[in-house]
Amino acid sequence: MPHREITRLTLYGNLVSGNCLKTRWVADALGLDYDWVEIDVVKGEAQSASYLAVYPFGKVPLARWPDGRTLPESNAIMLYLAETHPGGNKFIPSDPFVKAQMMSWLFWEQYSHETAIAVRRYHKHLLGKADSDIDPELLPKGKRALQRMQTHLSQADWFAGDRVTLADIALVAYTRWAHEGGFDLSEFPAVERWVSRTEAALGIPHAREAA
Amino acid sequence: MPHREITRLTLYGNLVSGNCLKTRWVADALGLDYDWVEIDVVKGEAQSASYLAVYPFGKVPLARWPDGRTLPESNAIMLYLAETHPGGNKFIPSDPFVKAQMMSWLFWEQYSHETAIAVRRYHKHLLGKADSDIDPELLPKGKRALQRMQTHLSQADWFAGDRVTLADIALVAYTRWAHEGGFDLSEFPAVERWVSRTEAALGIPHAREAA
Repeated sequence: MPHREITRLTLYGNLVSGNCLKTRWVADALGLDYDWVEIDVVKGEAQSASYLAVYPFGKVPLARWPDGRTLPESNAIMLYLAETHPGGNKFIPSDPFVKAQMMSWLFWEQYSHETAIAVRRYHKHLLGKADSDIDPELLPKGKRALQRMQTHLSQADWFAGDRVTLADIALVAYTRWAHEGGFDLSEFPAVERWVSRTEAALGIPHAREAA
Repeated sequence: MPHREITRLTLYGNLVSGNCLKTRWVADALGLDYDWVEIDVVKGEAQSASYLAVYPFGKVPLARWPDGRTLPESNAIMLYLAETHPGGNKFIPSDPFVKAQMMSWLFWEQYSHETAIAVRRYHKHLLGKADSDIDPELLPKGKRALQRMQTHLSQADWFAGDRVTLADIALVAYTRWAHEGGFDLSEFPAVERWVSRTEAALGIPHAREAA
């Protein structure tokens, strides 16, 4: 990944990262003209000299514009793209309280969901660790997150309001890969149905059938 | 904490929790008419039957309104209060990109800062654990977060734009108590100065002098 000048919005990310895919899905859904620069996190490319020259903190995803602006944090990138491009408001509730509920789920996703479900998948699936070498707290923590989603989705089709929003996009990113982290979604049938519903709304392949 | 009807905005929180104080500081700064219900987390009151009747997921802070609506997640509560009350826009940048930077820091705070600095303080200061009984990864992780803040604050007075925003409020909540978690802020002088600056902007006492 040579450091180079960019001519349009550039998303730096890794296709095996749900956090990165969130930003790509939103950019695609909005029909944005952007470049994707693949950064292989497992191979350490986020810490390479060329990427650190782009973003000294060495994390993906990152949005970067030709004028030099950069923006980290997957949920902040999604939100900014959706709020500043035509059509993006379809992913953001117009009612202030429903929007607040969406924001609440976005924070919950980063604090209580990603930290268990994505982290366990990273160790088990991407690093190939044995279960015995993975923090034993991640499995029950992830199950508690899935149970909370199951409780919500037993009474609603979407996380905020009556259509797909950024909350669903954020939460589906790693939930659709939960099996790769050793979680059994069949224990959470409302979650399993919502995964398919959200993948269909975004036009992305069902994770279990994809590559 | 008896379960009861409420007549105005009610914030359920714990005064020893930075996440809870965030919502109180914003409500106070906006001059809101609200009730504070103290929930002693260390004593387990967030899991009491009476609190679970209010909020089945047993977490604080929580905002609750007389019409039955509830909203969890500290940063989402701050954001909703500021966006929907007169004067709240002073804490939210009007420029969309600067607002996006604020949002980015809010997510970073929950993912990369609170999870080390608040968690270590909880174990060391509130539970009184010996250092040897605390996850050894929390100290270096917290120092990395403080170093990132130091890098930013060496070049700027505030986290997003040229005045105090919700990003500063969120980040100061546990940074001002970092010493209680075993972190030495004198190693991060720009952070130390920003803590005082933010406390002054909010009109809250300097943590080292308080109580």
